[in-house]
Amino acid sequence: MDRSSVVLVGAGNLATSLGVALAAAGAPPVAVWSRTAESAEALAARVGCPACCNINELPAADIFIISVADDALPAVAREVAACFPAAVIAHTAGSVPMDILRSAGAGRYGVFYPMQTFSKQRVVPFDNISVFVEGCCPQVAALLAGVASMLTDKVVHATSEQRRFLHIAAVFACNFANAAYGMAAKLLEANGLSFDAMLPLVDETAAKVHTLHPRDAQTGPARRGDVAVMNAHKAMLDGPLKDIYTMLSDYITAEAARDNNEKQ
Amino acid sequence: MDRSSVVLVGAGNLATSLGVALAAAGAPPVAVWSRTAESAEALAARVGCPACCNINELPAADIFIISVADDALPAVAREVAACFPAAVIAHTAGSVPMDILRSAGAGRYGVFYPMQTFSKQRVVPFDNISVFVEGCCPQVAALLAGVASMLTDKVVHATSEQRRFLHIAAVFACNFANAAYGMAAKLLEANGLSFDAMLPLVDETAAKVHTLHPRDAQTGPARRGDVAVMNAHKAMLDGPLKDIYTMLSDYITAEAARDNNEKQ
Repeated sequence: MDRSSVVLVGAGNLATSLGVALAAAGAPPVAVWSRTAESAEALAARVGCPACCNINELPAADIFIISVADDALPAVAREVAACFPAAVIAHTAGSVPMDILRSAGAGRYGVFYPMQTFSKQRVVPFDNISVFVEGCCPQVAALLAGVASMLTDKVVHATSEQRRFLHIAAVFACNFANAAYGMAAKLLEANGLSFDAMLPLVDETAAKVHTLHPRDAQTGPARRGDVAVMNAHKAMLDGPLKDIYTMLSDYITAEAARDNNEKQ
Repeated sequence: MDRSSVVLVGAGNLATSLGVALAAAGAPPVAVWSRTAESAEALAARVGCPACCNINELPAADIFIISVADDALPAVAREVAACFPAAVIAHTAGSVPMDILRSAGAGRYGVFYPMQTFSKQRVVPFDNISVFVEGCCPQVAALLAGVASMLTDKVVHATSEQRRFLHIAAVFACNFANAAYGMAAKLLEANGLSFDAMLPLVDETAAKVHTLHPRDAQTGPARRGDVAVMNAHKAMLDGPLKDIYTMLSDYITAEAARDNNEKQ
C-alpha cells in the first residue's frame, strides 16, 4: 500500500509530537495548518514542510488529522470538509465522539487518538504509545491504522464509547497522579523541604505498575490499615488536603478489604 | 574514618534493599536479624552474612539499623538497647520520632530514613535516593550520614518534625498516585480495555516533574477549566470514583486559579 499523505491541522502539543514522529518515520506531514502563523511555522520548520494559516490554501492530501481544542473542532472540521471533500478527516480528541465529523460534513472520517500527555517543550517519541483508531468504515479505520503503525506497534481499534473511558482513565492516571505530586510539593515546601527528594519515589511508583497491577502495588498506611499513622497525618492537614487525604485513604482501605474478601 | 559495622535488625522490604545496597557498596551488614528465621536467612544469604533470630546472639557492631513495623519498633529497640548499650541504634520509620529510641533505653540513637517505596520483589538501588538522617548528637548524625554517603550523594539532615512531612508527602506522591493508577485500571477493565495502554502516560507524567514543578506540569480538563468535559466525566462515574473525581478536579481548578492570580 502506498504511504498516505497527511496534513496536520493544528500545531499544538499533540500535533507537535505527532509531526515530529511522522517526520522521524520518514513520512513528514505535507503541510501544517494553524490559526496563528507563528505556531504553524514553528512546527513546519521542525518537520520540514510548508506552514499555512488558511485552510483553503492547504495542499490536497489523503488524511487531514485535526488536533485542536475540543470547542474549536466542529468549526475547523467543517472548513476542512468543505475544502477537501474526498479526504479522510480524523480528530485526536479523547472525549469527542467520531460522529461530530459527520455532522461537520465529512464524508470519510475517523479518530486517531494517541494515549499520552503532550507538551510542546517535551517532544515524546511514539514508539511505546498506544494509538486508538476508529473509522467511519473498515477502509478508513485501516488507513488510519496504517499511519499509526508507522509510529508504534500498539495500534488498537476502539469505539467512541471505549475512547471516553480511555480519556477518563487518563485523567486519573495522569492528571490526578500529577495533582498528588503537587500536593506533596506543597506540603514539603511549606516545611523547608524540596520536592526533588520525591523524584526517585515518583519514578519507582510508576515503574512498579509495569510489572504489578496497581492493586498489588498499593502500599502505605491506608493499604495496611494503619489507623494510628492515618490519624496523625490527618491532624497535620487542613482544608482540601485533609479532605482529599481522608477520601483517598478510605478508598484504598475499602479496596484492600474487598480484595482480601475476594481472595478468601 | 573507619567504616562503621552495621547490623540490620529486620529483613523486610526496606531492609532488603538497604542490605543489598550496603553489600554492593562493599560494606555488607555484619549480621541480619529477623523474628522469622526464613526472612533472616533469605536476606543474609543475599548479602553474605550470618542470619540470627535472637537479638542477644547478634554480634557487636557500631550501628544497629532497626527496620521493622512501626508498632513492633519500641519492643525491638528495647531489646537491642539492653543487649548492646554502647552501639548506635537507628530506626528507618518516616512517622516515628527519634525520641522513641531514647524511651526504649538507647544511649546513642538516630534515624536513617531513605525516601523510597520498597518491596522485596524489586530491589531498588540507593544511588538516586535521598537519605534523611537525624542523630541524638552531631557525632551520631555524622556516623549515620557516613553510612548513607556510601550509598548515595543525597544525604540530608532532617528533624523528626521535617520527617513527618516527608512521610506524609510520600503518601501523596506514591500511595495516592498509585491509587489513581488503580482507579484508571478499574475504569478500563470494566470496559474491556487494559491498563497497559496507560504505561507510557504514567511514565511521562512521572518524567515531566523532573524538569517542571508539578504545578506547571498540570494538564487536563480541570486545569483548563473545561466544564463540559468534567460534567461528561462525572456523568460516567458513580460511587467513590465520582466523589474523588469531583474533589480532585475542584482542587486542581482552585490551584490553577490561585496561580493565575499570583501571576497577575
